[in-house]
Amino acid sequence: MFTGNGPLALVAIAALVFYAYTIWQVGQMRRKHNVVAPATTGAPEFDRAFRVQMNTLEQLVIFLPLLWLAGTFFNRWVACILGVIWIVGRVLYMQGYMDAPERREAGAITSGAASAILAVISVLGVIF
Amino acid sequence: MFTGNGPLALVAIAALVFYAYTIWQVGQMRRKHNVVAPATTGAPEFDRAFRVQMNTLEQLVIFLPLLWLAGTFFNRWVACILGVIWIVGRVLYMQGYMDAPERREAGAITSGAASAILAVISVLGVIF
Amino acid sequence: MFTGNGPLALVAIAALVFYAYTIWQVGQMRRKHNVVAPATTGAPEFDRAFRVQMNTLEQLVIFLPLLWLAGTFFNRWVACILGVIWIVGRVLYMQGYMDAPERREAGAITSGAASAILAVISVLGVIF
Repeated sequence: MFTGNGPLALVAIAALVFYAYTIWQVGQMRRKHNVVAPATTGAPEFDRAFRVQMNTLEQLVIFLPLLWLAGTFFNRWVACILGVIWIVGRVLYMQGYMDAPERREAGAITSGAASAILAVISVLGVIF
Repeated sequence: MFTGNGPLALVAIAALVFYAYTIWQVGQMRRKHNVVAPATTGAPEFDRAFRVQMNTLEQLVIFLPLLWLAGTFFNRWVACILGVIWIVGRVLYMQGYMDAPERREAGAITSGAASAILAVISVLGVIF
Repeated sequence: MFTGNGPLALVAIAALVFYAYTIWQVGQMRRKHNVVAPATTGAPEFDRAFRVQMNTLEQLVIFLPLLWLAGTFFNRWVACILGVIWIVGRVLYMQGYMDAPERREAGAITSGAASAILAVISVLGVIF
């Protein structure tokens, strides 16, 4: 569990489980506000849940490869800590956005900074 | 071919080829119903094809990392079998959704169950 | 830097940085045209920037796994060259689309061909 890429795998799975939760939340809002597929808009609360899911997807696609590259080329534990910060940032983003779209900033900056640092240390890890 | 991660790679590529097909189908529907880019809505059949593509993308991002983690931390062949089930579920989802949105359930449940089992065995494989 | 999967990692990170740029561009267009979240439509230039980001995401999810599979199962440097071609194609796609939607074809074909070749050599690399 604490050897090889095991810790990285657990952080990656935690991020995927959180993302799956944002998908589930869209389904809940679909039922609550009677937004029938294939529509992807119809009620403000549904729209916010849908954007939370899509933005999590958009950021996850950047985060997961960088988590792995930073963990294998730089340092496994530093990557794991940044990965946990990324997940916390995404939870804050979701909670903020569901309250009001303008409250999504803090979470977006937190997870964005985590991804940016992962990118920088990945490049450093490859070059040096 | 049957050693190392080769089988996992072939299942991953098959999933990507299927996803590429859903993108191609959107292009076909764009022409058929004259939905001009950047619009992403305009005709019910186009809307369904677009949602099939987006949903496949949303699920693929969960599936591919879990396929790889389950295959390397738990068991390669179990992961491959679950991967094939996932692809079959996505094909059923596409066919159901293109018929009528409410017929997408069976395929969604099939591929969702495959991803959930991949997540569970990945965690088990890391821990034990 | 030039050993192991380092070169592949640098190409992957370059692709992710380009994708992050397309996200940043959507934010710029959001402010310029006052498209307030959670809306994802509202001005033609915003719509084009949003579709550029989404299409880059859709293609990135195919490209990144194939880059890695082709690089590990076929040949690292061939994969890197195709990866650079893919990025160039996506830049052309973005520039073309922002000018006019119908000018996105050349870039789409360039990056699509790179991904298709990556898929073929990945399969060849696994089988032989």
